Amino acid sequence: MSDPTPRRLPMVVPEAGLPARVTVYEVGPRDGLQNEQRTVPVETKVELVERLVAAGLPVVEVTSFVSPRWVPQLADAEELLTRLASGPAAGAVPMPVLVPNERGLERALALGVGRIAVFASATETFARRNLNRSLEEQFAMFEPVVARAREEGLDVRAYVSMCFGDPWEGPVAPAQVVAVGRRLLDLGASQLSLGDTIGVGTAGHVTALLDAFGAAGVADERLAVHFHDTYGQALANALAALRHGITTFDASAGGLGGCPYAGSATGNLATEDLVWLLDGLGVETGVDLDALVATSRWLAGQLGRPSPSRVVAALA
Amino acid sequence: MSDPTPRRLPMVVPEAGLPARVTVYEVGPRDGLQNEQRTVPVETKVELVERLVAAGLPVVEVTSFVSPRWVPQLADAEELLTRLASGPAAGAVPMPVLVPNERGLERALALGVGRIAVFASATETFARRNLNRSLEEQFAMFEPVVARAREEGLDVRAYVSMCFGDPWEGPVAPAQVVAVGRRLLDLGASQLSLGDTIGVGTAGHVTALLDAFGAAGVADERLAVHFHDTYGQALANALAALRHGITTFDASAGGLGGCPYAGSATGNLATEDLVWLLDGLGVETGVDLDALVATSRWLAGQLGRPSPSRVVAALA
Repeated sequence: MSDPTPRRLPMVVPEAGLPARVTVYEVGPRDGLQNEQRTVPVETKVELVERLVAAGLPVVEVTSFVSPRWVPQLADAEELLTRLASGPAAGAVPMPVLVPNERGLERALALGVGRIAVFASATETFARRNLNRSLEEQFAMFEPVVARAREEGLDVRAYVSMCFGDPWEGPVAPAQVVAVGRRLLDLGASQLSLGDTIGVGTAGHVTALLDAFGAAGVADERLAVHFHDTYGQALANALAALRHGITTFDASAGGLGGCPYAGSATGNLATEDLVWLLDGLGVETGVDLDALVATSRWLAGQLGRPSPSRVVAALA
Repeated sequence: MSDPTPRRLPMVVPEAGLPARVTVYEVGPRDGLQNEQRTVPVETKVELVERLVAAGLPVVEVTSFVSPRWVPQLADAEELLTRLASGPAAGAVPMPVLVPNERGLERALALGVGRIAVFASATETFARRNLNRSLEEQFAMFEPVVARAREEGLDVRAYVSMCFGDPWEGPVAPAQVVAVGRRLLDLGASQLSLGDTIGVGTAGHVTALLDAFGAAGVADERLAVHFHDTYGQALANALAALRHGITTFDASAGGLGGCPYAGSATGNLATEDLVWLLDGLGVETGVDLDALVATSRWLAGQLGRPSPSRVVAALA
């Protein structure tokens, strides 16, 4: 009798009432790498994105047009997009970029980007610390960006950060998050990504927030969830959101990432751990788990430290 | 404006339909320490158990009367129990011990133990590899142990391992687990602890297994769940079990532990990450999270390696 090897795929036991298919929105190249201490060479980023696309991720957020002064890790945004445009992943799947302001949008438009994302705050304090604006002023900043993007035919996603708790303000009321989210949808965003930036939310809070959006007339289809694993809750929160009817889940290959301005933020939900759950539930993602794990192992080697993903560790 | 510090407690947002209170069954001193490479001094074990009791854990499985030849890490079982019996935790909460056979039971009875646990397999292969017996023969082994324990007034818990998948056999059918569990209840066990020994189960599988027990007339109150975080699924699985109505959850302080005979097993669900979820849901546990985290940080120092618990890491 041979020794056992780890299972490379979960067993499949479907659960009633779940969507047949969901979208795993990969944020690793942007939200993961912007948090790395050292800058990753552009060649590595190109290979990362191309491998993620080849592994079946249906959308990969590739970079951000923030000022290199604030996020030097992503200073190569133009070069990355130019290289991707002539490589094998070009046109295969949407590759949104984060755009903080009108200048960023101009850079994105010049490169033919088809989708952008803006990054808003649900709280006054984080708006002031991260955007140097009041909660109200952030909408004035986003308005011309979203309007221009829509005129140019671009799809706009809006991140809403600190949707559960804020490190300075404490608990954040669902009604406040809904109010911010409604403003962003009214400006022209097609989807909100509800972020638990500091990872403090638990499953009942997830359900309550999604219920509050539903009561305000915002359907689950307009919402994505973006969980961080600071307190180990990310996958349980994803399960709560999935059972609620959410069909877009942000995740970061290998569990990289986090918010560089929030002291207590740690990595995003690992894409591999999410895909293991979805595969096990029989919910289709189109992702090849083995190819994804191989990509994260390769990236961990490039970064010189192990992946925090449990699945990556188990299959290593 | 001061810099933020990590939240030391989750925000509380209750969820409808959950039990008001659950039992966190702490297995760290037994299931955690039996997996450590080096043996922990008995003084450290005494302090660990006393600190866990002081932190509010309502039941702490303290050791095992297996042969020191197989688990040298727990060879000090008699001394540990003797010391605990004269210390501040004596009589405060139940402190079950694992008992593999009649000889182990005699050792437990001689020390006045009030609760025991036996360790069964749901699969033929693991029964042969771990117990050196067939699936059928294991019941013959447990029958006199459970009968004698019950005669002496002891409560008996039965662990059922490999309830979701087996590293040699692959997927395990819920009907097979129910058949094994029924036999153990019929022998006189008061509770089954359903173990995902190699961590391969996902949420729909948890629900299906618990449904199968319900259909066989076994109420959720007779069941506990015991998840391993090998593929990052432990807390999501616990959430699925909680929503099903399970009220006893095994966990290991700091996420220590696993099965020493299953190659791909990694740590148990961390007690801290479970308590964070339950606190956030407003489900009472009686556990003081700060005191528990302090205990796991102290133990990590004794073991010379960091805790895999996300909560312990975040609050360190």
